Amino acid sequence: MGEVHAIRKEGQVSPIVGHELLDGILRLTLQNAPANALSIAMMQLLLEHLRSAREDKAVRVIIIDSSLKLFSAGHDLKELSSHRSDEDRGRAFFEQTMRLCAELMQAIVSHPKPVIAGVDGLATAAGCQLVASCDLAVCSDKSTFCTPGVNIGLFCSTPMVALSRNVSRKQAMEMLLTGETIDASTAREFGLVNRVVPQEYLNQIVRKYAQAIAAKSPLVLKIGKEAFYKQAEMDLASAYDYTAQVMVENMLARDAEEGIGAFMEKRKPEWTGE
Amino acid sequence: MGEVHAIRKEGQVSPIVGHELLDGILRLTLQNAPANALSIAMMQLLLEHLRSAREDKAVRVIIIDSSLKLFSAGHDLKELSSHRSDEDRGRAFFEQTMRLCAELMQAIVSHPKPVIAGVDGLATAAGCQLVASCDLAVCSDKSTFCTPGVNIGLFCSTPMVALSRNVSRKQAMEMLLTGETIDASTAREFGLVNRVVPQEYLNQIVRKYAQAIAAKSPLVLKIGKEAFYKQAEMDLASAYDYTAQVMVENMLARDAEEGIGAFMEKRKPEWTGE
Amino acid sequence: MGEVHAIRKEGQVSPIVGHELLDGILRLTLQNAPANALSIAMMQLLLEHLRSAREDKAVRVIIIDSSLKLFSAGHDLKELSSHRSDEDRGRAFFEQTMRLCAELMQAIVSHPKPVIAGVDGLATAAGCQLVASCDLAVCSDKSTFCTPGVNIGLFCSTPMVALSRNVSRKQAMEMLLTGETIDASTAREFGLVNRVVPQEYLNQIVRKYAQAIAAKSPLVLKIGKEAFYKQAEMDLASAYDYTAQVMVENMLARDAEEGIGAFMEKRKPEWTGE
Repeated sequence: MGEVHAIRKEGQVSPIVGHELLDGILRLTLQNAPANALSIAMMQLLLEHLRSAREDKAVRVIIIDSSLKLFSAGHDLKELSSHRSDEDRGRAFFEQTMRLCAELMQAIVSHPKPVIAGVDGLATAAGCQLVASCDLAVCSDKSTFCTPGVNIGLFCSTPMVALSRNVSRKQAMEMLLTGETIDASTAREFGLVNRVVPQEYLNQIVRKYAQAIAAKSPLVLKIGKEAFYKQAEMDLASAYDYTAQVMVENMLARDAEEGIGAFMEKRKPEWTGE
Repeated sequence: MGEVHAIRKEGQVSPIVGHELLDGILRLTLQNAPANALSIAMMQLLLEHLRSAREDKAVRVIIIDSSLKLFSAGHDLKELSSHRSDEDRGRAFFEQTMRLCAELMQAIVSHPKPVIAGVDGLATAAGCQLVASCDLAVCSDKSTFCTPGVNIGLFCSTPMVALSRNVSRKQAMEMLLTGETIDASTAREFGLVNRVVPQEYLNQIVRKYAQAIAAKSPLVLKIGKEAFYKQAEMDLASAYDYTAQVMVENMLARDAEEGIGAFMEKRKPEWTGE
Repeated sequence: MGEVHAIRKEGQVSPIVGHELLDGILRLTLQNAPANALSIAMMQLLLEHLRSAREDKAVRVIIIDSSLKLFSAGHDLKELSSHRSDEDRGRAFFEQTMRLCAELMQAIVSHPKPVIAGVDGLATAAGCQLVASCDLAVCSDKSTFCTPGVNIGLFCSTPMVALSRNVSRKQAMEMLLTGETIDASTAREFGLVNRVVPQEYLNQIVRKYAQAIAAKSPLVLKIGKEAFYKQAEMDLASAYDYTAQVMVENMLARDAEEGIGAFMEKRKPEWTGE
């Protein structure tokens, strides 16, 4: 994390990802003007933050939001296009970009801490994928979502991976084939976001959400989040074999003993994360 | 089923699962006061009833409901905690509990007869899982649902298996990470229940539902239910190979000949279950 | 396609599938009175049209609709029943029917061009499956949907494959176990159709939808549609490995270079389909 910390030195230019740690909540703020493009630098920086937060006990929940008028417009088309003049017509650079993007999205899913997207404004293509990849998403009533790659000759094939694991088949296909934009309430109806809130309350509500989750045992959140995505890819019998074992190990953890004890004694639990 | 029948002897204490067979509908009523905890005894009794109903031709549809003010609060925390003082800190008992719970939920899914949950009041943790595991669920407008294990240090990792096969990803994650309670209409919107009905009509509507299904051929219900859950775990080509064969065998069954014949002759079919 | 073209000769009887090619949109109109039964002849003819449209550059989008008062009542029960007197009690014919049906539905899913269902009136059993199998579906407010095989002793086991990949578990099970009919707005809520429109505007809106998609690069639509259904059957890591590679190849296609270039230069792209 040397680079990230270096970036924060006073007097330096503002980093393209802001970060703030408050009450166990790490807030990563996209601020890569003008469109929060997911450039190589942006994706690497997000990955670094996510990686260093994995084992950092001070971080219990992560928020990803934006300080610009939009959430993110996806890949950096200028950066991608500039490599068309490479000897290999850009192949190596495109591969690096897509690998990094896939790594970033999976780093959210496999992260031991819950990740919440706080969305205001447009989330498009890989920006929409970023929202879909988070565990939870809250958006302002001014937010819109689309996967419009088809309009510029580049189908949103990586975004569809996250999109189609959140949104039903015909609805995902409509977004992908037409490239049309959906509004916040449609996004909620489709299952892409959990809640739509008035724009002026977005930050406050996202923080409240994060605080509620940060009050749980970090060990138990980690156990549960990991189990969720693993069992989702199993058949029913395997999923039950696996999660039954997860439950047994969870029961034997100190935080389960404390939590269940506190519940039966009607007192507040004190988590140690063990 | 010796034990179950024994329990019904007059003069004995009321069983923790009531059962009543009327017009082909087996109604299993949870009555394990105060919280319909899914204790070992409760799960074993439910499993016994389900097992003996498998081959019982008198049973065409199964209802699971409750005679208490709630549906079920899930696992018996007192029973679980009492085994913390075992030599193995409870591991063997926890394993027995989780194995039994997974067996119970899968016994519903793999049961040859349709199983309908009739829910009134709170369904939480494994109680919510029980609702999700049934083929259909009708609930009263006073019902609420949650998977709040995270609040007591024990993530709802087995409930999530059933939950996440009914409810979309972000919505399931919200219930699991926050532990918050959803109301009946949200449960319907999420896909956890089929219908929300006025409390005073719950029993009547659940029975009407069950009667409509009990009027179909039991053989055909068995063929269809089994095929549904099997094909759901296959890729598209395998699912079609499998179900095409299921359709051929179904066509050759006596009840298909009778049913299609009756339809073309505009008369009521008479099922023999063959 | 000799047969199809032959059928259109003047003076001949009307074909059971009408076809019209206009502005890159192939419209296949079911007109097999009285019920648009998916007879062997009907399924073969649809398959022929779909096959010949695969490589036909004049076809960019396909619409499947109906000229009758209903969309389709599913398999031809008369035809099926007539083979009960075969030496094998119909087994060979039932196998042919189910294989052909599975082939037809998969020919839509694996078709390189987007397929849109334009539904007015009843879509039942394999007719409902046909709607579910299309990439997109628009229906009139007079449309209804059901999978009522259970009522005639033949569970809708092949229709459930398409249905359960569009509609959530409890909702699909309700349709399959009760055989009851849902209206257009419920079908939209369930995810079976994308949009419900006034009956008198159905054709116009379906065509507008098709035109919007026909204006995209056919190569890019093909890449994206194929990737969508393939990645849907993969685990997350495999889906990302696969689609990242799809994106790289897509970036290197001429239409991506043209499309991204046009977008950055704020002009309309000109697709060559390469």
